[in-house]
Amino acid sequence: MSGAQDRGRVCVAGLGPGDEALVTGEVTQALSEATDVIGYIPYVARIAPREGLRLHPSDNRVELDRARHALDLAAQGRRVVVVSSGDPGVFAMASALFEALEAGPSAWLDIDIRVLPGITAMLAASARAGAPLGHDFCAINLSDNLKPWDLIEKRLRLAAEADFAMAFYNPRSASRPAGFARALEVLREACGPERPILFARAVTTPDEELRIVSLREARPEMADMRTVVIVGSSRTRIIAREAGPILYTPRSAVEAAA
Amino acid sequence: MSGAQDRGRVCVAGLGPGDEALVTGEVTQALSEATDVIGYIPYVARIAPREGLRLHPSDNRVELDRARHALDLAAQGRRVVVVSSGDPGVFAMASALFEALEAGPSAWLDIDIRVLPGITAMLAASARAGAPLGHDFCAINLSDNLKPWDLIEKRLRLAAEADFAMAFYNPRSASRPAGFARALEVLREACGPERPILFARAVTTPDEELRIVSLREARPEMADMRTVVIVGSSRTRIIAREAGPILYTPRSAVEAAA
Repeated sequence: MSGAQDRGRVCVAGLGPGDEALVTGEVTQALSEATDVIGYIPYVARIAPREGLRLHPSDNRVELDRARHALDLAAQGRRVVVVSSGDPGVFAMASALFEALEAGPSAWLDIDIRVLPGITAMLAASARAGAPLGHDFCAINLSDNLKPWDLIEKRLRLAAEADFAMAFYNPRSASRPAGFARALEVLREACGPERPILFARAVTTPDEELRIVSLREARPEMADMRTVVIVGSSRTRIIAREAGPILYTPRSAVEAAA
Repeated sequence: MSGAQDRGRVCVAGLGPGDEALVTGEVTQALSEATDVIGYIPYVARIAPREGLRLHPSDNRVELDRARHALDLAAQGRRVVVVSSGDPGVFAMASALFEALEAGPSAWLDIDIRVLPGITAMLAASARAGAPLGHDFCAINLSDNLKPWDLIEKRLRLAAEADFAMAFYNPRSASRPAGFARALEVLREACGPERPILFARAVTTPDEELRIVSLREARPEMADMRTVVIVGSSRTRIIAREAGPILYTPRSAVEAAA
């Protein structure tokens, strides 16, 4: 342990969905010990500057460059934190780091690498709306940058057949607006028009917006790249209240005997 | 806002997988304001006693009683925290609370209810092992207390066909040891014997044990009720290192062109 402070290391840390009260103590500690913080511009903007800390904000879609940069700095003995929003292991930087590690020089295999989990967007959204992911569920990245659209559609159909609740990351971008419209069509067909769908935008930030509608009412423009979308299973229910509806999935897959 | 402190409320809070450094500030704050803490005995045991705080530990399998108790105390004006391990919205107390709410007196609909997310076991396990859930995945509760075994088996087969990585909660209990053995058979058949499987026991606690084997080598007794199990997708890879293997799923669903 005594050499640990002298050896370089990379922590891939999850900052959670936005609210600082959702950052874990483990992540705060790693940031306080860091010499370098690397990440997408808006995430690095959340880190308070201090003496001895170098911030390396970078643009989106350069995940592999960012990962190599982190490993390279750590190989030089620096204590690097790569910041992700949400959880770094869910459609975020941890996989990119391991891709870079596997393709990189074998000396990188000696680097101390830790993944520090965070509150991922779907679970923050679920908590704000109730508990729609309280029974079996799946998480699908709707971006077709890294997989063919046919595979996305196949997964939607199989997930509906399995009667999973479903959480969708990256539902919609300006560069491919048609994909999410098509996903909604597939879901309406596979789950029926009455199934509830939650659009949770910018959860736990001042811009938060939650909207629960039926698949019949759902429109592609209800989502943007700051939105996580959750579709209920056949068991998912809405409790109407003055303070706003609660969306939840009971623990049991079958109707209670009582 | 001024009346908020006088009105009763229920927070359903996630304590994370075990390490206190993984508890969020939001949960710590809610506990510091609580008059009553309700939960399963080992989770309530994690809460430090203090003047003015009543602890209500209860046995397992009484989730609905516990939920009603929490709502009843809040209706009397108390500030109640229901503690779950992990995230309360993932196979935990949040759904039970909403079931009790829906079946209870209509006056309960005025109670201030908040779900405070936590680090759920599968994401803590994923972080410790690498990033096996870095691409599309599903989460399945293998307990057949609340659903028929046929449905579990159907979901396993559909999840394999969708090529999801899979996380399993409650894989095995003394009362139904045969279920998990059968699940492993189904998975071997559907995913092939070489597919990696992670047994992550008591993650982030002093009892933590991580074990990565192939489905061929997997044995039911590698899991107990403190274990979360993750099976990779067809893309999941292992990086061998002196410090221990890394299990991760690349971001792309297809072989990289480069």
